[in-house]
Amino acid sequence: MSEQIVIVGFGPVAGRLIDELLPAVRDGHVRLTVVGEEAEAAYNRVLVADLGVGRTTADALALSDAAALIAESVDVRLGVRVRRVDRARQQVILTDGTTAPYERLVFATGSRPVIPNLTGINPDPASPVLPAGVTALRDLRDASVLRAAVDGGKRVVVLGGGVLGLETALAAAEEGATVTVVHNGPHPLGRNIDRGGGAVLAASLRRCGVRMAGNARSTGVEHNAPDGGFSALLLEDGSAIDGDLLVLSCGVRPRTELAEGCGLSTGTGILVDHRLRAHHEPHIFAIGDCAEVRCPDPACSECRTATGPSGLVGPGWRQADWLAEYLTLLATGTQADADALVELPREQAGVIVLKARGLTMAVAGDNAADPWDEDALTAGAVNCRPRLQIAQWADPEHGRYVKMTTRGGVLEGLVAVGMPRSAAELVSLFERGAELPADRSLLLRLDGPEQLASGPADPAGTVCRCAGVSGTRIQGAVEGGCSTVADVAKATRAGTGCGGCHDDIKGLIEQHFQAAPA
Amino acid sequence: MSEQIVIVGFGPVAGRLIDELLPAVRDGHVRLTVVGEEAEAAYNRVLVADLGVGRTTADALALSDAAALIAESVDVRLGVRVRRVDRARQQVILTDGTTAPYERLVFATGSRPVIPNLTGINPDPASPVLPAGVTALRDLRDASVLRAAVDGGKRVVVLGGGVLGLETALAAAEEGATVTVVHNGPHPLGRNIDRGGGAVLAASLRRCGVRMAGNARSTGVEHNAPDGGFSALLLEDGSAIDGDLLVLSCGVRPRTELAEGCGLSTGTGILVDHRLRAHHEPHIFAIGDCAEVRCPDPACSECRTATGPSGLVGPGWRQADWLAEYLTLLATGTQADADALVELPREQAGVIVLKARGLTMAVAGDNAADPWDEDALTAGAVNCRPRLQIAQWADPEHGRYVKMTTRGGVLEGLVAVGMPRSAAELVSLFERGAELPADRSLLLRLDGPEQLASGPADPAGTVCRCAGVSGTRIQGAVEGGCSTVADVAKATRAGTGCGGCHDDIKGLIEQHFQAAPA
Repeated sequence: MSEQIVIVGFGPVAGRLIDELLPAVRDGHVRLTVVGEEAEAAYNRVLVADLGVGRTTADALALSDAAALIAESVDVRLGVRVRRVDRARQQVILTDGTTAPYERLVFATGSRPVIPNLTGINPDPASPVLPAGVTALRDLRDASVLRAAVDGGKRVVVLGGGVLGLETALAAAEEGATVTVVHNGPHPLGRNIDRGGGAVLAASLRRCGVRMAGNARSTGVEHNAPDGGFSALLLEDGSAIDGDLLVLSCGVRPRTELAEGCGLSTGTGILVDHRLRAHHEPHIFAIGDCAEVRCPDPACSECRTATGPSGLVGPGWRQADWLAEYLTLLATGTQADADALVELPREQAGVIVLKARGLTMAVAGDNAADPWDEDALTAGAVNCRPRLQIAQWADPEHGRYVKMTTRGGVLEGLVAVGMPRSAAELVSLFERGAELPADRSLLLRLDGPEQLASGPADPAGTVCRCAGVSGTRIQGAVEGGCSTVADVAKATRAGTGCGGCHDDIKGLIEQHFQAAPA
Repeated sequence: MSEQIVIVGFGPVAGRLIDELLPAVRDGHVRLTVVGEEAEAAYNRVLVADLGVGRTTADALALSDAAALIAESVDVRLGVRVRRVDRARQQVILTDGTTAPYERLVFATGSRPVIPNLTGINPDPASPVLPAGVTALRDLRDASVLRAAVDGGKRVVVLGGGVLGLETALAAAEEGATVTVVHNGPHPLGRNIDRGGGAVLAASLRRCGVRMAGNARSTGVEHNAPDGGFSALLLEDGSAIDGDLLVLSCGVRPRTELAEGCGLSTGTGILVDHRLRAHHEPHIFAIGDCAEVRCPDPACSECRTATGPSGLVGPGWRQADWLAEYLTLLATGTQADADALVELPREQAGVIVLKARGLTMAVAGDNAADPWDEDALTAGAVNCRPRLQIAQWADPEHGRYVKMTTRGGVLEGLVAVGMPRSAAELVSLFERGAELPADRSLLLRLDGPEQLASGPADPAGTVCRCAGVSGTRIQGAVEGGCSTVADVAKATRAGTGCGGCHDDIKGLIEQHFQAAPA
């Protein structure tokens, strides 16, 4: 028995699914077609900003090797899009006129940037035409536009105070550009962070050389550059922020139009059940940024509180791993065999981490309550459930801030700015659901002066959260001969996601070679 | 040459002045008269509440021994008041018809409790007649009233959220009384503490069994007890707080009427210059609670920002020490000899310390600004003066709160609740004007789990702040044979003031005997 699987989209999540399906391809159980609209196979999109400031190369971003896959007899179709899905005939029709039949179809179409409705920018979300000097910094071509601006020491305006916008701004500022971040609200990161953390974060960004324009509502762009391109972002209060390049960093939206076009249910993303199957369509699956896990059962308590796609690569990779196993079981056995596979556990609330030279931040969960807000703290304390408790350390002078929101001693929210080791430990406690020490101030000590500056706080814990790789496994790879972050990435996949763990991986490599006899 | 000195008042500050003048009395340079309106010579007024809950004895409170002074030929007149001062004839006329001539007159008349203007209480501040069941807890007789209530397990209402009221409430609650503290504003201690510290303090008081009635404006007292005494405190909102004893703890006011009656200048207290002399009257001095140091020179920058009397015993004792030396020089030499004595340094802003079983608090300086209040933080930052900076730890769940308000790294304000060792270190840093470590969180560690529970944080520092005695000196006394707090007090004066250092003295004694070979 051999099943024909078609994957629509060739981003990092699709790349991972293909990797994990390769054994079944080699065994002849699966025939695989992948359709990607870009000219390149999967590459690390999270690091496009790093590429844009010249810190990495396009080669280093590559996650899949099209030639190698073709050699494995995967049917790789690049630079072409799926025009529509014919569910009756179980085939996809491509823009080049070709078709591809499927027994199982996987949507891994990812997401597209949100283009804000600004005068001077085409607001059609499906096919925005961005004017010269405006980029959403999504693909390799966008990176080269940023690269030119940074290399020229130009003025870059970043619209949006999310973590990707901030990372782009920090990197561009460090590399010599004059950067202004324009965002709504009093501080960046919006409701993901609280007032105190937001204030310390904004001040730290300023210290890193990034201009911060908060409480700013943008209304349009001005095109007075000599080439007719972007020259200023216009604000509602009548002022303007001059610049040579506008980077739009206003979030992403799942690409669902193809799924909608063939009659699948969508919410924020393509609706799938706990086995990642489209509702009422056992032949179609969706994973990654385009998928929204919410089963058709209205009584499912897990789905009642589910949120949309996380926008993070880690959950998508875990879905790819799981789906590869499920599809392999389907191809080699019965439906019952496959359904015996333990469902993917629900993703926890995402942890947002920002790591830059001189600035570290981690936030997770709900950080809205403040320590003195009795109403907010006792709101959910019904049926013997303990009330929220908050411990908070604020030292804005030194750019440090920690807030721990706990219920019964377990974190429900965390904010840590300027305290990398405390942040790592808190994230670990948050992800494990572990109880905090009664003396919460112990957690502040990890960033005390006597702590070493390199290596992760707890090597046994997860170092690369995107790929789910522990410090112990990285140490094993280093002992096995890996001496660079790239080596470790190849051997373990650690560091192939957001890149936030690169310093920790370097620390582990250094520890190994320092400990080794001369 | 022999000078006649008359001291009006025989409280702790007068007692100290007499002690320090005794050598000159013995040498025949000074003849000394002291007039005290109470039947007792000086005793520790700060510990009257402790006496009232049965924790100490009247004997232990005694600071002066009238019989011993009379044996030293001091003219001690007790149970009599000064009716008026005749500056022309340089004599005081007493209520018993006798007179006492003086060459130098020292006012040490102290202060009297503020009696709030409540229906049912005589509001005449000079001679309040308090109804049965109402006490201001000022003298030994008041202590016995509280004692009867506590021993009877009665309901005690404390009006006033100052540190003395809180200490009384905590002690009475611990000893079995049902205690309610009634105070204005959202939290106790008013403007001495900030919102966060006040909230944690109020919660800690509740945990210690004290009921806290905040934001309460009292309007009158009800006398429906069987003996016609106090039965309830009436509030503006129409409610009432029932009780058997009302303790008024609404602050004190300097006793200046005698000085006013003889034409001396008064402000809040009797106005004295930097040599503690009444304005334009070289024969009259004032020290302690009744004295306000503010010289007649309008250009004196020190006095422009001076505040009224502190109400603390330590500054009064330092004035008594200095004045004894000055008066001895005057009696034995020329005015020029005496004026060569270095002036008493200006008192720093007071440190308010509350120590009770299960609750420690220290506040000092200005704590009004919050970490995010840019206006407040930058207000005083002119002429290259650095702005205020704030570091703050809040863990209300565990009753812990620290706020450090610094300028140029030096404390201008501090709040510490529930962290005794951090509090002691911060107070020491505040008093020395020392720079804090850049990692402010280091200060939180002193109360970490690995710290010993006994002994002061830094034995070389001041342990008894009232009497100004270092841990080193106390250790010396313990090595010299002192094995109780009372022994140490007799040998060094440590512990004779507010009593807040008694546990530290105990700790030093224990350390000595543990370290000694068996």
